[in-house]
Amino acid sequence: MIIESRKNQTVVKSRGLLSEKKLREKEGLIAAEGVKLCAEALDAGLQAEYAVVSEEADKKYSALTERLRGICPVYIVTRDVYFSLSQQKTPQGIFLALKLLDKSKNLDRILEKNKIILLDCIQDSGNLGTIIRTAEAFGIEGAILSSDCADPYSPKTLRASMGSGFRLPVCVSSSLEKTVLGLKENGFETYAAMLDETAQRLGEFEFPQKCALIIGNEGHGVSEAVAGLCRKVYIPIRGAESLNAAAAAAVICYEMGK
Amino acid sequence: MIIESRKNQTVVKSRGLLSEKKLREKEGLIAAEGVKLCAEALDAGLQAEYAVVSEEADKKYSALTERLRGICPVYIVTRDVYFSLSQQKTPQGIFLALKLLDKSKNLDRILEKNKIILLDCIQDSGNLGTIIRTAEAFGIEGAILSSDCADPYSPKTLRASMGSGFRLPVCVSSSLEKTVLGLKENGFETYAAMLDETAQRLGEFEFPQKCALIIGNEGHGVSEAVAGLCRKVYIPIRGAESLNAAAAAAVICYEMGK
Repeated sequence: MIIESRKNQTVVKSRGLLSEKKLREKEGLIAAEGVKLCAEALDAGLQAEYAVVSEEADKKYSALTERLRGICPVYIVTRDVYFSLSQQKTPQGIFLALKLLDKSKNLDRILEKNKIILLDCIQDSGNLGTIIRTAEAFGIEGAILSSDCADPYSPKTLRASMGSGFRLPVCVSSSLEKTVLGLKENGFETYAAMLDETAQRLGEFEFPQKCALIIGNEGHGVSEAVAGLCRKVYIPIRGAESLNAAAAAAVICYEMGK
Repeated sequence: MIIESRKNQTVVKSRGLLSEKKLREKEGLIAAEGVKLCAEALDAGLQAEYAVVSEEADKKYSALTERLRGICPVYIVTRDVYFSLSQQKTPQGIFLALKLLDKSKNLDRILEKNKIILLDCIQDSGNLGTIIRTAEAFGIEGAILSSDCADPYSPKTLRASMGSGFRLPVCVSSSLEKTVLGLKENGFETYAAMLDETAQRLGEFEFPQKCALIIGNEGHGVSEAVAGLCRKVYIPIRGAESLNAAAAAAVICYEMGK
């Protein structure tokens, strides 16, 4: 049966999962669109709840849709109905609802790691996803986000993370200060990225085996209360006044991963 | 006199300069919005053609509007009219039309430099602006763009560049292959950033004094024809499949600037 109504219950729910953080949290689900991102979610071990696929996509991407049929209900919709729920300009016609990762368990997993990143109020979803992608690329093993960061499971963040958001353990902290103190008790050296020439200059020291990098808000940097608990690291720059948060994270993670 | 009509000729032209590349080229003008970006354009030596300022902004940012009155016509508009031309969600109420930089002269200026960046089909304006900002921060002295890059003078690019787009000499090349050949004749060593483990590994060699880095398209990387003329450099990564173009540029420019 092909769903032809935009008001169909599953269609309405899927549209909501893509656009509303509250609904994602209430349902305990996250939403992914597109062939690559959906396949990456499955490869990362996430549990599929249901899929919505356009008629065309069902034929065009049959390897993926067969895989989906083996693990969850797959609802076929018309092209128009798919368009009505999608957030993409040129959608491929594949939507997947996945069980929300249990973030509470992630903190324990992250504390066992060696290299982690903390994000203090990163507000742009694109920046957040890019930082998660870059961190994973350089061997960072987990991310802890302050509760005022953008939603790590919004479609825009997941898209920018190119699947890294499914693989890298991520958790949200209600107090980054407490988290930093806890990390130090667990043997982590903590480094706040600062625009401060009295800080340690990146490239002139080696990061210890167990360390955490804190990247601050796009406009205001790392909050004072958090920075006061950490060593400070600065990236030597000349021309521009500052780097954007994702560029700063890339350069420091590169050095941490060396 | 306060302009109260959204159809006023200057208002219509300003709206067009913000949204239409063709109009910018036809008029030989670029457009900036916001206190910081407009001040940076003036500080960088760009020539102001005219300004549009909301009544509120004229009082609130009087230091800047007085400066503007000294150098170009300043048109005061109502808050509503300003909203109608602005591209920003919460505009500060300052619009500035500036003489388009003469890109043709920039190529000669760039050839005299030591460290430059070439961008091969960077299509996202945000990425392009971020790369220009990051490159300037690490001491890169000029940028050459393939003609299929995003517009370096679009409002979104200029905003992401945080003013670096006004300061860094930028030019557009109709053939990046010819440009690379010309650079080599002028003593530049050229490096294409590649996801290729047979390439030279970043961090394991020193960049020569005179060198050019080529960053490729977000999806497809550096085009084969261009890459074939260059040394290849790769960034050692582990977790994710790749880095986004701006993150890759940040890390390599950081090493080039060392």
